[in-house]
Order: sequence, then C-alpha cells, then structure tokens
Amino acid sequence: MNGNRFGRLFQVTTFGESHGEAMGCTVSGCPAGLELSEEDIQADLDRRKPGQSMITTSRGEPDDVSIKSGIQDGYTTGTPIGLVIQNKDARSGKYEPFITAPRPSHGDFTYSAKFGTRNWGGGGRSSARETVNWVAAGAIAKKLLEREGIELKAHVNQIDDIEAPEVSFDQIKKHSEENDVRCAHPETAERMQERIEEYQEEGDSIGGSIYFEAQGVPVGLGAPRFDSLSARLGQAMMAVPATTAFEFGLGREAREWTGKERNDDWEFGEDGDPVPVENDHGGIQGGISSGEPIYGEVTLHAPTSIPKSQQTADWETGEIKEEQVIGRHDPVLPPRGVPVVEAMLALTLVDFMLLSGRLNPDRVDDSPGEYDTEYHPSNPENE
Amino acid sequence: MNGNRFGRLFQVTTFGESHGEAMGCTVSGCPAGLELSEEDIQADLDRRKPGQSMITTSRGEPDDVSIKSGIQDGYTTGTPIGLVIQNKDARSGKYEPFITAPRPSHGDFTYSAKFGTRNWGGGGRSSARETVNWVAAGAIAKKLLEREGIELKAHVNQIDDIEAPEVSFDQIKKHSEENDVRCAHPETAERMQERIEEYQEEGDSIGGSIYFEAQGVPVGLGAPRFDSLSARLGQAMMAVPATTAFEFGLGREAREWTGKERNDDWEFGEDGDPVPVENDHGGIQGGISSGEPIYGEVTLHAPTSIPKSQQTADWETGEIKEEQVIGRHDPVLPPRGVPVVEAMLALTLVDFMLLSGRLNPDRVDDSPGEYDTEYHPSNPENE
Amino acid sequence: MNGNRFGRLFQVTTFGESHGEAMGCTVSGCPAGLELSEEDIQADLDRRKPGQSMITTSRGEPDDVSIKSGIQDGYTTGTPIGLVIQNKDARSGKYEPFITAPRPSHGDFTYSAKFGTRNWGGGGRSSARETVNWVAAGAIAKKLLEREGIELKAHVNQIDDIEAPEVSFDQIKKHSEENDVRCAHPETAERMQERIEEYQEEGDSIGGSIYFEAQGVPVGLGAPRFDSLSARLGQAMMAVPATTAFEFGLGREAREWTGKERNDDWEFGEDGDPVPVENDHGGIQGGISSGEPIYGEVTLHAPTSIPKSQQTADWETGEIKEEQVIGRHDPVLPPRGVPVVEAMLALTLVDFMLLSGRLNPDRVDDSPGEYDTEYHPSNPENE
Amino acid sequence: MNGNRFGRLFQVTTFGESHGEAMGCTVSGCPAGLELSEEDIQADLDRRKPGQSMITTSRGEPDDVSIKSGIQDGYTTGTPIGLVIQNKDARSGKYEPFITAPRPSHGDFTYSAKFGTRNWGGGGRSSARETVNWVAAGAIAKKLLEREGIELKAHVNQIDDIEAPEVSFDQIKKHSEENDVRCAHPETAERMQERIEEYQEEGDSIGGSIYFEAQGVPVGLGAPRFDSLSARLGQAMMAVPATTAFEFGLGREAREWTGKERNDDWEFGEDGDPVPVENDHGGIQGGISSGEPIYGEVTLHAPTSIPKSQQTADWETGEIKEEQVIGRHDPVLPPRGVPVVEAMLALTLVDFMLLSGRLNPDRVDDSPGEYDTEYHPSNPENE
Repeated sequence: MNGNRFGRLFQVTTFGESHGEAMGCTVSGCPAGLELSEEDIQADLDRRKPGQSMITTSRGEPDDVSIKSGIQDGYTTGTPIGLVIQNKDARSGKYEPFITAPRPSHGDFTYSAKFGTRNWGGGGRSSARETVNWVAAGAIAKKLLEREGIELKAHVNQIDDIEAPEVSFDQIKKHSEENDVRCAHPETAERMQERIEEYQEEGDSIGGSIYFEAQGVPVGLGAPRFDSLSARLGQAMMAVPATTAFEFGLGREAREWTGKERNDDWEFGEDGDPVPVENDHGGIQGGISSGEPIYGEVTLHAPTSIPKSQQTADWETGEIKEEQVIGRHDPVLPPRGVPVVEAMLALTLVDFMLLSGRLNPDRVDDSPGEYDTEYHPSNPENE
Repeated sequence: MNGNRFGRLFQVTTFGESHGEAMGCTVSGCPAGLELSEEDIQADLDRRKPGQSMITTSRGEPDDVSIKSGIQDGYTTGTPIGLVIQNKDARSGKYEPFITAPRPSHGDFTYSAKFGTRNWGGGGRSSARETVNWVAAGAIAKKLLEREGIELKAHVNQIDDIEAPEVSFDQIKKHSEENDVRCAHPETAERMQERIEEYQEEGDSIGGSIYFEAQGVPVGLGAPRFDSLSARLGQAMMAVPATTAFEFGLGREAREWTGKERNDDWEFGEDGDPVPVENDHGGIQGGISSGEPIYGEVTLHAPTSIPKSQQTADWETGEIKEEQVIGRHDPVLPPRGVPVVEAMLALTLVDFMLLSGRLNPDRVDDSPGEYDTEYHPSNPENE
Repeated sequence: MNGNRFGRLFQVTTFGESHGEAMGCTVSGCPAGLELSEEDIQADLDRRKPGQSMITTSRGEPDDVSIKSGIQDGYTTGTPIGLVIQNKDARSGKYEPFITAPRPSHGDFTYSAKFGTRNWGGGGRSSARETVNWVAAGAIAKKLLEREGIELKAHVNQIDDIEAPEVSFDQIKKHSEENDVRCAHPETAERMQERIEEYQEEGDSIGGSIYFEAQGVPVGLGAPRFDSLSARLGQAMMAVPATTAFEFGLGREAREWTGKERNDDWEFGEDGDPVPVENDHGGIQGGISSGEPIYGEVTLHAPTSIPKSQQTADWETGEIKEEQVIGRHDPVLPPRGVPVVEAMLALTLVDFMLLSGRLNPDRVDDSPGEYDTEYHPSNPENE
Repeated sequence: MNGNRFGRLFQVTTFGESHGEAMGCTVSGCPAGLELSEEDIQADLDRRKPGQSMITTSRGEPDDVSIKSGIQDGYTTGTPIGLVIQNKDARSGKYEPFITAPRPSHGDFTYSAKFGTRNWGGGGRSSARETVNWVAAGAIAKKLLEREGIELKAHVNQIDDIEAPEVSFDQIKKHSEENDVRCAHPETAERMQERIEEYQEEGDSIGGSIYFEAQGVPVGLGAPRFDSLSARLGQAMMAVPATTAFEFGLGREAREWTGKERNDDWEFGEDGDPVPVENDHGGIQGGISSGEPIYGEVTLHAPTSIPKSQQTADWETGEIKEEQVIGRHDPVLPPRGVPVVEAMLALTLVDFMLLSGRLNPDRVDDSPGEYDTEYHPSNPENE
C-alpha cells in the first residue's frame, strides 16, 4: 500500500532517505539453510555504489552492509534478515535552495503535495539511493535462484541513439562488467561513454535502456491473469526509478508483427517435451513461463538533476526563478541501474519459485533438516 | 497470489473460463451510496463484446450482466457487489484437436505444464473472455471516478505500421467509438480497417497498440517506490492479455532525450500552484501524480489463434503435426482491447483514490449518511 | 481490508446478503486435480441449512450450490471455483419496522452508521446467512486436508450452564450428528435440547459454545509471530458471527496453571521423534504445530433477534419504542455453528498447508501431471 | 505470510532474535506531520523492558531505540520509520544444553522441525524479546490515536486464582503503573505479588491475564465479516506470546447469558444519536464499533522456562534427560505483557482508523500541508 514492501512470499520491506542516517531492508521469507554472508551481498552493492567512475556521481558511499538478524553460523535460519547500510556522505545543505522551489520533473513537488512536507535533502525517500536496499535483497534472491539453476544478467543496450547490437547471454555475462557503461558490446560501450561525457560537459544528462535476461527458469512459473509473470515483472520494473517503459519479448515492436511471424511453432526437445522452435514470445506464454529464456528491456529517462539552468516556481515566495542542480549526480542512469534491474528480476522470480512450491518456503532442499543444528560450532557433534 | 484478484482497497475477484457456464466478478470496497444499475455496466460490456463487427470474432455472446448483491434500491450499500455473466455460445468441440497438441504461443502448453491439466475449451482460464469481468468491474470504477472529475479514455493508435497522428483527448472522446477499429483519427481508422482485413483474408492476424489518457487526476496519487502509480499501472496493463509493452509519458523514446529536453520547467497555474510548463513526464513524477494528464501506450501482439497452418507437437502421441485454428477469433486485439485498457486504468486510479483518502472508503460524499435509509421506497418518509 | 476475503494462498472471496438474490463464493488457489462435485459441498451445506429441526429457524432454504467454474470432468483445474447459492425464501417485508429503529445488539446500527445505509432485509450483509459461503469453501478445504490425513470435527460442548463432559475425537465423529443440538454426549444433548426449548418458549434465546479438534496436523505448520497458527485461528474463529471468545489448549483456564503443571515433557514417539507426553499446549508451541491434536473452544453469544419485547430508539422519528423481532430466528447458535467452525478451521489449516509447501499449490500430488488431460472423456486415450 | 508483518495500512515489519545483534522494526504508513521523538517511544519501551523489578527477568537491556529514517525536524514525513534497538546483554552460552534437547512447551522443537534449524540462543525468533518491536511501533500508533481522542489502557486482572475486582478506566489509568504487577487494584496487586514470589521461590512460574480497554473509539470502525474489529483483534491478541485465550465483552461468560439479558437496549444519547443503554456487547456489534468502550481480556499461560526439573528428549543423542532452565526468566508474563497488549490494541485500532478514512493516510489533519516545509529550521520563514 505504502510503497515500501515488495514480494508476496519473499518479502522485502525497506526504509531510508537519501540524506538520512541509514538505509535498511528486512527480507522475510528466505528459507533456512542458505549459506549467506555480508560478502555475498556486498559484491552487488559495490556494482551499484556511487563514485565508481567518471560517469557516476562522486558521492562517497562505501555502502557497507551489516546483517543484524536471521543468520546463524553463516546460514539463514528462516527468520527475517535485517540489513542496515549507513549513510556516510550526506550533505543536505546543498539542497536548501530547492526546499520550496521544486526541481523540474523530480519528485520534489509531488512528494510535498502528497505529504504536506518531504525530506528535502537530496530527494529524501524519492532518491534512487533507496535502490541500495533492493540490490541488497536481490543479492539474497540471486543466491537462492542460482541453487535452482536460474541465472540472470542485464547490460546497457542503448544510450541516446547509440544502440548495441544483439549479444548473447554468455557475452553479457562476460563483458558487461568490463567497462564503466556496463554495455556488453565493447565498441558500443566506448561510443556510449563518449556520448555521455559530451552531455556531462554540457551540464546535461541523457536517457538509455537496459536489456535483461534470465535463463534456466522452469516451465510453469506465474499465475493466470493479474499475477502473471509479465504483470508482476511489469510492476517490479516500472518501480525502478526513472523507468518509462517496460517491454518483454518483442516488446513494442510486436505491434508490427503478424500472428504467423510471431507465433513460435512447437517441436520436441531433448527430453521429449514440447519446446518452442524460437523465442519471440520472450519466455512467457499466457502469463506463465515456457521454459525459454525470459528477456526484455527497461527504458530509463535522463536524470532530472542537471547543472543546466532550469525554471522553477517557489511556492513560498511566489517567484519564478532559474535554478541549477549542482549536486553530485549521475549524467546517465543505466550503468548503475544494471544491478537494480537484476535485483528486481531476481526478487520477482524467487517469489514465483516459492509460490509455485518449487522452492520449499521453510528451508532449502539440502539444509540438514530434521530439527538439526549440526552446523553450529558449539555443538560437540560438529567438532 | 493466484492471479484472480486485483486491487488493494477496491478489490476485484474473478472466476470463469472461456467455455464454462458463467463468468463472475466480485467487487469489494465500493463505497455505499453510489447510484448503480446493470445498465451502467452493460454499456461498457457492449463495447467489449464479441460479434460487433467484421473484424471481431463472430462468437455470439450477449454478455448480459446480472447484479446479485451489494445494491439496494439502485444504490450501492458498501457490501460486495456480486456480478455474474452467463456464457451462452460456448462450443468446446472445436478445440478437441488441440487438447494435447498446444497451439503455438498460446497458453495451452504453459497452463497444462503448471496445473497438469487445463480447461481445454477455447483457452479456458487463459482466454481473453476473462476480460468481460474486468470491464464490468471497471465500469463501476469509472462511475466513482467521474464523480471526482476524473475522465479517462483510450483509442487504437497503431495497427501494424499504420500509426495515427497525435489526437487530443477531446477527439478521442468524440471519435474513438465511431469506427470498428476504435481509432480516433477517422482516416487512419479506415487504413487500419483495410490492413486488418488483408491479414484476415490471408488467415493471419496482426498486432497493434492502444493509447490511454486520464484527465482530472488530482496531485498526490500514488505511493513511493514499489507502489508508485507507474508500478501499479505497469502491473495492471501488463496483465491485459497479449500485452508485450507498457509505456507512459515519452515511454521507450525517453532513452533518446536529454534531461534538459525532457524536464518540464515549473510555472504557476491559475490557482497559484506550481504547474509544469509541459507534460513530457506523463503526469507522474517520482511515482506520484503531478496533476497533469496521465497518458501512455500498451502494445498488444497479434492474436495467436490463426487459420494459417502452424506446427505443433502432440505430447500424447509424440507426433509433430500441422494445425489450423479455425475457431471464431479476432484478427486483431486492440479494437476490443480499448474498454479493457480503460477498465484497468480506472481500477488502478480508483484504488489510489481510496488509498489516498480522497474517496471515503465507507460511502460517497453525498450519500445520505447519518444511518439514513431515506432512499428506500418502503420508508414512508420517502413517499 | 473490506472483510470479504479470507486466506492467503487458499483464497475465499464472498458476496451476498440475507435477503438478496444470491450468495456467492469464489475459491482461488485450490490445486488442480482434486475430484470435486456439488455433492461434496452440499453435504456440509445441509448440516448448516435452516429448518433442520425445531431449534433452528424455519426459513426454508434448500441452499443448493451451483459450481460455475474451475472444474472439468469432475476435477479441479487450478483456476478459481465460482460457487453460487440462490436465496429462495427471503421475506424482507418482515423487517420494515426496524429500518430506522435498530434491533438491540444487532449490527443494524453499526452498519448504518458506517455505510450511511444498509441492506435492511433480515440483517443484510451482517446476517449469519453469509456463513453458507464459508461452509461451501470449507468443504473444499476439508477434501484437500483429508487427502493429507488431516481430520477435523466440532461439536456443541456447552449451552447455558449445561456443560458436556470431555469426549474423545472418535465420540465426536460418531455422535455429534445424531441429535439436533450437535452435542456428542447424548444425555447432555437431551438436557441441552430441553433448556433451549424453555428459552424458545419464553421468547428468549441462549448462548453456548463449540469445541473443535483437528487430528493429523503435521509438525511445523504456522509461521512465527503475527502469522502464528494461533493468531490466524484467532482471526478465523473471531470472525464467526456472535463469537465473543476464542480459546485453544487450556484456554482461559491457563491463567491458573503453573509452568510445571502446564508444560508438557518430551519423550520419544514411535518414529523416534520427540513427542510431548501430554497435550496441555493444544497442539501449538511457539505458534507452530507440534504434531499433537489442535483443539479449542469458541463461545457464541445468544442470538440477538428475540420475540421478547426490547427497547429501541428510532433515529428517524426520535421515538423510543418497544419492539419484538418476530422473524424466523434460531433460539441458539452453536448447533448450526458447528459446520461453520469446522469450515474456518479447515480454511485456516489448508492455507498453512499450502504456505508450508506441504500441499503443492499447482496440483495435488497424484494428479496426472505432465500436461496431461487424460481424465477427459473426449480424449481417445481414455476410452 | 511469514509472520513478520502486521497491519494493512499501518504496516509494521520486524526482525531480530533474542540473542542476535539487534531488534528492528519498520513502520510504514504513518501519516506525515506527526510530532515524534525517540523519547515518545522510549517511555513505552521502559515499561516493557527487563530488569524492572524482582518479578521480571534480570537480563540487563536498556532497550534504547534509535530512529533511522522517516523523521525530519521532529515530525514524521510519511515515509517509513526505521527503528533499531541493540541487544546488549545476550548470553547465548547458557542455552547450549538445549540445542538438541527441546525445552518443554517452548518453541524449540517446532521451530527446529519447521526450519531444520533455529537460533538456539535464548529462544531466537520465538522469544518474547521480539515484542520490543511491537511496543515501539505501538507507541507511534498511540500518539496518532490520542490526537483523535482515543485512549487505551490495560492492567493485570488475574494471576493464578487471584482475581481483581472490576475497576474503572480511570482507576486503570491512575493505578496500573504504581506497582510491579501492573494491577490497578492495589490490594489485589499485593496479593498477586506474594503469590508470584511463592512460585518463583519454588522454581516454578504461573499464568495470568490482562484486561484491556479503549475509550473514544468512533462508531463505524471495522469491516464486515473476516475483517471485523473482533476478528482482527483476535489475530492481534492471539499473536501475543503465550496467549491461550482472547475474549471481548462478556467473553466466555456469554455462553450462559440469554439474549434478553445480554442484548443492550437503545436510548438516545446527548447528541441525539442512538446509544446502547449498557455495554455488554463490548463496544462491537456486527463486527463494527458501536462507540462504546471496547474491552476484553487476554489469558497468558505460565512462562515455560522454569528452574524446576523437567524431562526432555535429545534428538541428537537419543537420550531422555532431566533439564533445568536456569536463565534469566520472568516468573509470570502479564506484568510485562501490559504494554504489549496495549501496543497490539493500538496497532489494530490505528489501522482501522486509516482504513475507514477517519485518519488521512497522507498526513495528519493539522500538518502544514500545501507543499509546506515550514517547520524546517533552515527555511528563513521559520526564524
């Protein structure tokens, strides 16, 4: 209801503002017996964190995650995992000019109008800083999915009008982390980097998009109608800050394809099961996974905080004035958005794995079980 | 969880299959005191029903809705509204060839794989027949929204590569119902109609898209993050059968816009409130409504049921075979999808109106109140 | 939110008023492959229906259930099961005196105050007629539970100060349906019957209680804290109309027991697992099932509708007046409440069975699976 | 689902184990503009904390709460309030004997059976230490309710067979905090104290009960049927650790009252509205609040952790053995349970206030509103 919870069986609840004391996330519904450490989570946080390169904000946040509960001797216990990430480099003073003069196309005005106030430091709750929580929760989801043979990965496939050619899942896994743009096609990445820098120098910003793919998803995930895999992915991805479009399979292009062209004939696969000859359907048929890779794209508009002069209206003074947002802001969102999109994909899939009974909600399949506590070092049996 | 419920405070629960006895829908959370009759609902059902024209299926369903509860003397009572719509023209026999040989890109295989069985008559629960329930519930939502000054409308803006020029909201209201395609630009509608007929004659089908718009939405609807207006619209629209893309505002195009270009400066409106100079943001900023019109597009792929020969794999016999789907199927989905998209938009908005406290969850503002029963004819006071 | 939905994975949504056209119930989340017919449901409805004996209301409702969806060839398909039960013997006219003069301790005033109106015929939505829906849904839940070896049963254990001695689960199964009071101790049943008739003759009514028990519940159902088995049973049972107390295990009496007395020591059971020596804990420890029988009691106050003269205040006329409720009302609730309590117990347990992964949410374990449709008669393989 | 969330619009999500690093609680859905400080919360935490007296555990926890988000300049901002409470005096070593030998009637065995493991230090997630989170969240709920004129209070009304005479709401407010037992009847409190000490000296523990009451609840809170005020209170109260019975109004006693005796006649109140002559119905009619005080009782069984020797079964060694739980445990629960019961009552009521639209979900009524940030000190208007 209030926007701070995601997931039905794998439940993520978050708190925190851009310039508050800490960000935090409670993951409830992770089965017991999963090996989990702060390092597992940190790896993804480091991919999202600010200050990684010239084309990301220079805000200096180490984003060190601390696990407060739900773990014993390196394994989850089935009880809620409390995560806290301190905000270290918050400098609210910078935002004072905008308290009553909303930044264009930012959440400043709408938050203030809704709540009659807002955390005005750096965007408060509307800041993309919140996604640090999502990435932390997503890292846990990924660990669960990997055990089930589900792999997922994203990369930046377009910035401005520079579009990457189609690349394979293996290429994405191999190349997307090799450059600052997180585009799996190295030459395109270079061109994107240049383009971004051009806009950055002009004091402007630019939009782009992220391609995502999940492999190894079993047949039969998703529910009919309102809770179809595509509907829930739609919610998950449209929640990513700055998203204006969500597509899967042929996406928007499907409007120009005929039924005969788009339909994927059936043949028999290696196991003797019917499998589609192609995958124009994007891994989802009738809202339910077909066993083929699930893929799609998310469009992120250009960051709204730009140094270029813009016009605002101060509701306190009644003045129209020019303003420049000279904070530490990203000139483009997709590079840091890649782990966020992966996180939302992972959270959506792990939820469906639990809902379908394919993941045991109480404990992972190879957990000791039978009331065991054998992995506890103080248990004499373990020594 | 199970896909048969939508909405958080304005709750819709549905049942029914394509060739079952009846479709049904329970609307829980409609405030008391709303004037409501079967005619109010029927009007929208008639826009969605089959057999309206040459470019819709010839299945003969009158789709007469019957209100079973929740109404007294023509007004809602605040208790759940039970709606039932009989299926009259179900002819399951037609689908027998496909029982164990799934139609390409249909839900046949995935439903069977998930549930170990399926209603095989005409798509069962995966059939778009289900949307009759959505349109019925949406009609109630629309009545509530209209009272609050919120108007919404959709039209078909693209079929194949034939794209309608931009039309105003007034034009959509005026023209979209004037032609069978439901495109508000009459000349384009004619071209679309011809193109659809071409595919129909070939035994093929074609994709297209629907543009939607809501006006009069107050500032401040939506919640931060996971329950943002865009995230919940994303879920709602991606649930529409055959949808492969959801966009709002600039949508996919935003990837090629700079921050300076896309950002909407602030000025003061007539009431002295800050208002954006333009509406490239699509009526949503930071996930919350800005007071500007909310608009976007939904892409629907071509109907998968086509007379053209296609290849399937029969899991019972192990045969690869050719099949033709000679049912009564639409050659294109957007024309009948228009009221469905409107319904999902209305259901999403009315839910946020309740969640924001702008609509009283117990009763509409001008309902008699104070324990009254005065609109009851058997009450002597009323005569 | 709105009170018309119960269950998290096994979801029941209801509609209907006492004197409306029909009652209805949608069961979403029942796995596919369960053999189910209207007869299965009817058996329990007949136990709840009015007019069974001299100590129940004489309203003549056959309560014939009609399954509208979710079944194919006698088996569930995993899609929502729509149930409708017509109201046949509604006589609203009888209630006209009470439209603006609320019956004492009934829901008349509170419903009117909340909604600004109400269905005034026979209690409308606040009438216990609604429980026909619960019993229908509960019958499906019971069928699922029986397959898992879970049996449950209730009987009337107190009317006024007449308390039945403790009886075994087997005795409850054997005797509770043998008398009109539904008390499993025959001699007590007779005394109860006489007492009820005395009050009935005086134009008064009387309270009582129901004892319930479930056997075969596996260890480990329930979740920590807010969703403990006891918390969710608490909600379920307190929703039963006229309930004023819910107890499990020692219940209220536990306040006078010491820890040493109440604690149940551990020994090893037949399977070599720890089992409690006794069951003073009522089958639930730390909110989670212990494998022992779950038992408890529900107290139902006396029916509020009585022929004896009572004082009311007419908000329309401003008059204080005497009124007599001369409808067709039960003089005592527990006898017809027995199947209702069983239904709520079944619905709660089946939900936890799904949530724990012990029941496959997609299909029952012995359903044909592997995309099969083999139980369909038109499939040549089946003949 | 997973037991770590409570509330529908006023949402509480918790984490933490008895001997983990920290307890934590996220409150989502608190309207903006409420003045709130750590002191507001601390006051109630101090009432619940251990080590207050001889009849509570000697564990030394200061239970200092830290607000991590959701507040600006002393007022809530409408965004989630993150609360963290460090565990300071955790001594897990004490619990080693019980790792594989479950304590009688504790959650040890059921947690281990469900999850295949558990936090074995001091009860882990099943420990009543969790209620520190509930009390913290409840303190915020109470502040909101007070603004609406709703007051609530609880006291201990029975320990063993020592029952307090009926006391007025004013007496409860005045006297319940004056003694260690938290019984509002001073002489009874003394007798209870002695009795508790007797059991404590024997190495045993004893049960008891808490009476609660809320005044000023407006007419019309609660929803029909499954979400009735009594059903949701039932869930809330049955979630309180060690609860075995929940009663409201006449509670269990209602089984011996006739309709005529229990029914409350109507008269007109001061405002000219119908009001019940008495309040045997406990402030709830048809599941909806009547405007009369809501009152009831909760029974808490004796603490299961006792020094007296008990028998357990070690599943690792296969031994039956005697064990003594020599931790720092309470000999009785109700004295520290009083603020917990108040918290659950407050959380339930505030949720219904939001659901009924009586509390604005976005901001409290006298918050500045109109995009204001005027209570911010750096805003020149404020100086």
